[in-house]
Amino acid sequence: MDDLRTREACVACDAHDPLAPLRDQFALDAVDAEGLIYLDGNSLGVLPKATRDRVRQVVDEEWGTGLIRSWNDAGWVTLSQRIGDKIARLIGARAGEVIVADSTSVNLYKVLSAAIALVDSNSANAGAGGAGAAERKRKRNRIVSERTNFPSDLYIADGLARANGFELVLVDADEIAAHQDDRLAILLLTHVNYRTGRMHRMADVTRAAHAAGGVIVWDLAHSAGATPIELGEADFAIGCGYKYLNGGPGAPSFAWAHPRHTAWMDRVGWSQPLAGWFGHAAPFEFTTGYRPAAGMARFNCGTPPVLSLAALECGVDTLLAAERYGGLGALRTKSVVLGTLFVTLVQSRCAGYGLQLASPLDPDARGSQVSFAHREGGYAIMQALIARGVIGDFREPDLMRFGFTPLYTRYVDVWDAVDRLLQVLASGEWRDPRFATRAAVT
Amino acid sequence: MDDLRTREACVACDAHDPLAPLRDQFALDAVDAEGLIYLDGNSLGVLPKATRDRVRQVVDEEWGTGLIRSWNDAGWVTLSQRIGDKIARLIGARAGEVIVADSTSVNLYKVLSAAIALVDSNSANAGAGGAGAAERKRKRNRIVSERTNFPSDLYIADGLARANGFELVLVDADEIAAHQDDRLAILLLTHVNYRTGRMHRMADVTRAAHAAGGVIVWDLAHSAGATPIELGEADFAIGCGYKYLNGGPGAPSFAWAHPRHTAWMDRVGWSQPLAGWFGHAAPFEFTTGYRPAAGMARFNCGTPPVLSLAALECGVDTLLAAERYGGLGALRTKSVVLGTLFVTLVQSRCAGYGLQLASPLDPDARGSQVSFAHREGGYAIMQALIARGVIGDFREPDLMRFGFTPLYTRYVDVWDAVDRLLQVLASGEWRDPRFATRAAVT
Repeated sequence: MDDLRTREACVACDAHDPLAPLRDQFALDAVDAEGLIYLDGNSLGVLPKATRDRVRQVVDEEWGTGLIRSWNDAGWVTLSQRIGDKIARLIGARAGEVIVADSTSVNLYKVLSAAIALVDSNSANAGAGGAGAAERKRKRNRIVSERTNFPSDLYIADGLARANGFELVLVDADEIAAHQDDRLAILLLTHVNYRTGRMHRMADVTRAAHAAGGVIVWDLAHSAGATPIELGEADFAIGCGYKYLNGGPGAPSFAWAHPRHTAWMDRVGWSQPLAGWFGHAAPFEFTTGYRPAAGMARFNCGTPPVLSLAALECGVDTLLAAERYGGLGALRTKSVVLGTLFVTLVQSRCAGYGLQLASPLDPDARGSQVSFAHREGGYAIMQALIARGVIGDFREPDLMRFGFTPLYTRYVDVWDAVDRLLQVLASGEWRDPRFATRAAVT
Repeated sequence: MDDLRTREACVACDAHDPLAPLRDQFALDAVDAEGLIYLDGNSLGVLPKATRDRVRQVVDEEWGTGLIRSWNDAGWVTLSQRIGDKIARLIGARAGEVIVADSTSVNLYKVLSAAIALVDSNSANAGAGGAGAAERKRKRNRIVSERTNFPSDLYIADGLARANGFELVLVDADEIAAHQDDRLAILLLTHVNYRTGRMHRMADVTRAAHAAGGVIVWDLAHSAGATPIELGEADFAIGCGYKYLNGGPGAPSFAWAHPRHTAWMDRVGWSQPLAGWFGHAAPFEFTTGYRPAAGMARFNCGTPPVLSLAALECGVDTLLAAERYGGLGALRTKSVVLGTLFVTLVQSRCAGYGLQLASPLDPDARGSQVSFAHREGGYAIMQALIARGVIGDFREPDLMRFGFTPLYTRYVDVWDAVDRLLQVLASGEWRDPRFATRAAVT
């Protein structure tokens, strides 16, 4: 990083960045004019330019003029599948293996239900038959997850565990290996931790879970679109549309199951619990009885939100555009350099102000975000930094998060962000009471 | 209807229609220029003019420039609640009693789960404790619904019934009364039938279900926004955003519970199964354990789709704009006249072509749609009619549906639609093979 320790060096690096043209895909004129540095793409990705026209087209033409005919004529009915096929290219899956529908939490409910059904389909899981779901005496009765996994994942898992007679066991990351035993039913992990940015070695963890006889469910919310993902032999995955996929606030989520599992579902006729008409084999026959669609399509539920889907597709396209620049591998390389540069600059320039690196120093163990803890002033420092035009975010009790989305973050952004952070710390301006008031969304 | 049996009379009636200005809220220029008559607002409402600017504002300004700050600054975090409060005014509910989230099917899953919990909370329901959920021997173990209820509702109900040890009993509308007995746990009805437009007398049915000791769940998909609704003492309700609420394709859905039930949920700490972070009492504290929000907010799940919500709000506003014209009462009156005019004109002008009225003749028993069956050519006649610029839709095996959305359907539209229907029938052009091919969405 020595060669990037001046602003001029960062500017020069941007000038020679082969990925720089990818930034032109985004509507950042107003942001740049405001002098804003946006380091929160890990929470809400920025607006792609193409989204503006596409959403206008969907609203004015497809809905406004095409009306109901657009379900067929504009392809609304297959939109979810089309976007799913695109997302598949980002996560090491194949066409047909990914659906886009509902929210991340709702999709987790579906795939965790599938994982539970899979666990119970294993006749070796003694006592799975007979008694009611919540009272079964299973040999494998543990759903294991990280204590610092994203809370919504834990809420969904806990509810399903209680309803189905499993025990949700929360452990620290370094205790996961010790819980890969014959009580492990399902291992539920988020690939990149939302708090620390710590990244699991997906293939290794999947292998270990399988060796222990468990089913693994990956949440890709904080990694899909930021780093190459090879789901490989994993069992289920879900992910988020509005972070690195740039799909817009509250964009629909995606879900994946390994084809061996959808083949099993087809064989036994398994339905996920949210058995709505868009997951039916023939929704427009309007039959009274539910018959799940083949493959992943069974994971659809209600009528899809077309406006939000159209925006999501534009976001996904911004990542597919990177394929001719080296794709996610090249993006990941840049992301690692950006993150490491940030760590290096903060540790050298902001030393002595009480910041503690809360992310792994090893870039191979870190996703596309860096977190620093500040015991006394995490929230206020972030607010003061936002007032100086650097947008990161805060997570209780003391974490400041900074996301480095390689599609649009520049090297000079990192330099300037650290420079402003230093000003906030050196001036002590963050101690101003106006920075202490918590907003509804932190 | 005698005075409306000429086109001139219909034109005159439009000229004097006090509700006519409400039509100006909609982006119908292109539709009118095309000579199109849109009678499918019961399936997908038309685009309000305000939606175009509002969605552009959300995309360009709130997302594009405001970025993550808009969760607070643009009020995204309370958007669902704000729209819920507006919808409450349309269904006889109060502010705070309605949430907007997810799809209709997902919301039905939530409120039916609540209804089941409520049934089991009644200690008089012998044997509710003890054994597993699916094996309980309940005195009241029936979820009763209509055989011709919207299939997605039946799919969701069937899945929950199986998982929880209830029996889903499907009956014809005239058999419902006979099933109001001591086996009735939950009565699940759609206020207006999607096939026939037959409308239940909500207050009477609610009273009878309660008298039998049952819980009633209303689906308002085909009535909210078209007719005054007084939920009164009903237990739960859900509804659709993209039909009469004009929220756009796949718009989010709404859910309501009687305050006595949310008070009970607050008291016992009940969580709905889709316990995602937006239904948590304090989502931004990021605590490991789930603690449901008070009241209806517990029925939220994941991050809400902001673009789709913004469009829905504009749609709901087109109905609130009717409040100074007499509101839903006045709209209902017009809807009844439109529907009755259509029936009268079809029966008089199109007699002898095999059309059978499939909707109640009594307007008090009919929602805002009229269906005609044609044994041989229902699908083809509808396709030929669409080719002549009248958009209704088709439901297997033989139903042609025509929706009369009083906000934007004119008397002359009804006259012209019947005129074109007569041309299709008299010419026999619907027998052309090109009208026989089923599209993906019918």
